[in-house]
Amino acid sequence: MSKGLMLIISGPAGSGKGTVNAHLLGTGDFVYSVSATTRAPRPGERNGVNYHFISKEEFLSRIASGDMLEYTEYCGNFYGTPKKEAEAVLDSGKNLILEIEIDGAHQVKEKYPDAILIMLLPPSFSVQEHRLRTRGTETEDKILARLERTREELSDVSSYDYVVYNHDSKDKEAAEQILSIVSAEKCSLRRNAEVRKKYFGE
Amino acid sequence: MSKGLMLIISGPAGSGKGTVNAHLLGTGDFVYSVSATTRAPRPGERNGVNYHFISKEEFLSRIASGDMLEYTEYCGNFYGTPKKEAEAVLDSGKNLILEIEIDGAHQVKEKYPDAILIMLLPPSFSVQEHRLRTRGTETEDKILARLERTREELSDVSSYDYVVYNHDSKDKEAAEQILSIVSAEKCSLRRNAEVRKKYFGE
Repeated sequence: MSKGLMLIISGPAGSGKGTVNAHLLGTGDFVYSVSATTRAPRPGERNGVNYHFISKEEFLSRIASGDMLEYTEYCGNFYGTPKKEAEAVLDSGKNLILEIEIDGAHQVKEKYPDAILIMLLPPSFSVQEHRLRTRGTETEDKILARLERTREELSDVSSYDYVVYNHDSKDKEAAEQILSIVSAEKCSLRRNAEVRKKYFGE
Repeated sequence: MSKGLMLIISGPAGSGKGTVNAHLLGTGDFVYSVSATTRAPRPGERNGVNYHFISKEEFLSRIASGDMLEYTEYCGNFYGTPKKEAEAVLDSGKNLILEIEIDGAHQVKEKYPDAILIMLLPPSFSVQEHRLRTRGTETEDKILARLERTREELSDVSSYDYVVYNHDSKDKEAAEQILSIVSAEKCSLRRNAEVRKKYFGE
C-alpha cells in the first residue's frame, strides 16, 4: 500500500474549511490530525479526540526531540502537531488533514517537504465579507479583524502549492478539487522517482 | 476565460495512448495537436487534419523564427509542432494534447515551461510485453525493438511531471487520472501567482 499524503488546508474565516473537510473525511480516505496541547481539557473534551492533552514538560521535550511538526504558544499554552501520530496515519495509507495557519504550514513544510499546502479561499474578498456578515455571529470589530488577518495571510501565500476557491460554501466542488489534487500528486514524478526500477523490477 | 493547458502525453507501445486520448477528446475540453510536416500527403490525408503540409523552405524558416516547439527529421522529412497553432488553441481555453516522444517533450519543455509532461505506462514491463504479443500485428523483431526502446526512454523520464499507469487499456481510469492532473494543475500556485491581486482586486 502506498503512503498517505499530508495535506495542510489553510483558509481565512468564511472560506468554508469545515464543510470541505467534512466532505473529505466522509470519503473514508482522510484522517483529521489531532493537535497536542498543554491546556487543561474543557468539560466534554476527550483526550485523543479533541486534543492530545499532555504536560508542558512533555510538550517541551517533544519539541526538543523534533517530534512537533509545528507548534505555537497562545495565552500561555502550547498547541502543536505531533509528528509520531501524523506518521502513523500516513503509514496506514490514509491521507492526513492538518487545519493550520500559514505560520504553522511553513514550519511543517520545512520539516516535511512532502506536505501539500492548500489555501482555501472564498471566491473574492467581497464574498468573504458578505459571508462573515450574514453569519451574524460576530461583532463588527471581530469581522474587521478577520478581514484584516486575511490581508496579512495572503501576502505570504508563496510557499503554498495550490489555491482552491470555494465558490459555494455548501457545495462539494472545492472538496472534489482537493480530491483531484490528491489524485494528481500521487502520480507526480517526485513521488514516483523510482519509476524505472518499479517498471522493470531492477 | 483561463488559458488551456499544454499536455504532452508520451508512452511506449502498448501503453494505450490512443484510447486514453480518445477519452480526453470526448470530453470536449481537449484538442489534439496537428503536426507540421514536409512530406507529401498520402491519399486520403487532409491538410490541417492529419498534418499541416508545408514546404521544406517554410519549415526551416519557422524553425529559424522559433515557431516550432519541437521538431525532428525522419527519412529526409521534417516533422514538428507549430507554436502559433498551439497557442491559438490554448488562448481559446481548450487544453492541447501533444502526443510526442521524450526528445520532443524535452524540446517543448525548454521553450514552454508551462507544459505538463505525462508519461503513460502499462502497469509493468511484463504486461506491456503481453499486450504487444497478443495484438499479433507485429513481427518478433519489431516487438523486441519496441521493448528495448521503452528501456531507453524510461532511463530519461526525469523531466516528466507525472507518471500514469494504464492498468486496463480499454478502461477510462487513466484518462480520469489525467483529468485530475489537469484540474489540480489549474489551481497550482505557479499558475495562480497573482492570488493576492486577484483576491483583493488590487
